[in-house]
Amino acid sequence: MSDTNSWVNGEPCDSISLHDRGLLYGHTVFETIKVRGGQACLLDLHLERLALACAALSIPLDLATVESEVIRFCTNLDQKVVRLTISIGSGGRGYLTPLQPKPVRILTQHPLPEHALRLQETLKKGARIGVSPMALSSQPALAGIKHGNRLEQILIRQSWQPSWEEALVFDQDKRLIEGTQSNVFLRKNNSIITPALNDAGVAGVMRQFILNNPTTSKLMITQGQVTPADIAFADELVLCNSVMGAWPVAEIIGNDLVGDKTFDRNEFKLTLLLTQLINQHGAI
Amino acid sequence: MSDTNSWVNGEPCDSISLHDRGLLYGHTVFETIKVRGGQACLLDLHLERLALACAALSIPLDLATVESEVIRFCTNLDQKVVRLTISIGSGGRGYLTPLQPKPVRILTQHPLPEHALRLQETLKKGARIGVSPMALSSQPALAGIKHGNRLEQILIRQSWQPSWEEALVFDQDKRLIEGTQSNVFLRKNNSIITPALNDAGVAGVMRQFILNNPTTSKLMITQGQVTPADIAFADELVLCNSVMGAWPVAEIIGNDLVGDKTFDRNEFKLTLLLTQLINQHGAI
Repeated sequence: MSDTNSWVNGEPCDSISLHDRGLLYGHTVFETIKVRGGQACLLDLHLERLALACAALSIPLDLATVESEVIRFCTNLDQKVVRLTISIGSGGRGYLTPLQPKPVRILTQHPLPEHALRLQETLKKGARIGVSPMALSSQPALAGIKHGNRLEQILIRQSWQPSWEEALVFDQDKRLIEGTQSNVFLRKNNSIITPALNDAGVAGVMRQFILNNPTTSKLMITQGQVTPADIAFADELVLCNSVMGAWPVAEIIGNDLVGDKTFDRNEFKLTLLLTQLINQHGAI
Repeated sequence: MSDTNSWVNGEPCDSISLHDRGLLYGHTVFETIKVRGGQACLLDLHLERLALACAALSIPLDLATVESEVIRFCTNLDQKVVRLTISIGSGGRGYLTPLQPKPVRILTQHPLPEHALRLQETLKKGARIGVSPMALSSQPALAGIKHGNRLEQILIRQSWQPSWEEALVFDQDKRLIEGTQSNVFLRKNNSIITPALNDAGVAGVMRQFILNNPTTSKLMITQGQVTPADIAFADELVLCNSVMGAWPVAEIIGNDLVGDKTFDRNEFKLTLLLTQLINQHGAI
């Protein structure tokens, strides 16, 4: 049943042990990487985040091996998404992590999501988004990490209305954290803010690309607390992730936390700037 | 590589697809069942909890098939732990659950933990426990469910000092929730309280057995908020789970939340009562 569409530890394989602690407890970290013309986009930032995540979860990581496997796996791919998963592997007893973990490196490939296949059209049109009725929990020990405990995202995704293309997600203190599968930047005049991710959320690679960029760092982007009122007053709201790039919000279908709102397409200035940066760097 | 020590969907098998959403996102529920003399202990309560958990996480469950597989799997086992895992299976796109999930039923067998092998001695001695430095997050949508997102428990278990046999776990509002792998009952005179599990924690099967029992229900056990002060004032503290039964705490090695405390062995009255009930019912 093995195929070359997926690898485990550098070899074609499509299954994993029942005793893998990724399956048992979600003790994994992962990256969702866009591949274009045989190249893994933003690979340095993906690997940087992966290393931080593995350190936080006590998963030993041979970064050089991971890097060379990703590069090799992507060589003949184009317009795909590759998921890189590092599981802590098998062993240990109950919740006790093995003393000497033998991590498992998993690579799988997937078609681009529909929206990303029609990317120009999607970005031009802007996103129609909802607001998650479920709030994220706060856990500083896991915040920012793209780990394998994703039941909150599963339940939030299940709550989407059919017309939504994304949903804003708040924490239990009514602070905006992110989209279901994206990060968020708000612009009001020349001020830009993105939610701080100290207590919840995933620190996306595209978010990091934007924060790192010398052009945008001149814009003085704040990482801080974002309230429903900030959304009400915003001129522009931009979603981002490493597959879609920068996706402006055209309309929020609100709830009792955030009112309905339509954004003026003439105000998509941050989107324009970010899209230029992304294109200049061939980031997606 | 298949063996008869583990089954997938009723057949000997020791691996699972890389695309299983249990591995990808931790979208599983599980039960840890003690097996004695070919019998799965407290099976009705395990299956009852499993059904609630599957309903909460949109995992379709054929309970009759699961029950007959567990019974068959346990037939020739004695003094083992069997883990029953239900994964939502493969399919779907990203966080979007498949429209028609094909769940996977997994059975694996394991030796009893060391403590449970010397059960009489362990219970008589009482447990020496610590206090987790990490607090649980609050998530009403997942509270009580024994689901596969267990990174908090993994990190808490990593924080144990070598001499600890368990650790008390609080939430971020300094309310006692549970032990790392047990539930907790406190006694002060004739009053008994166990933490409410509306916001965090796992509703253990042994806890449920105790709450359901007509003898203990006469004791008027309260499910409510338990503070560090309640622990300081308690006469007796009992840990329980479906492998160990009722395990009295002999000593707490405290921290800045809960002080050091030694419990008087002559006060292990609730333990005695619970142990009698457990033995009468052959519950473990």
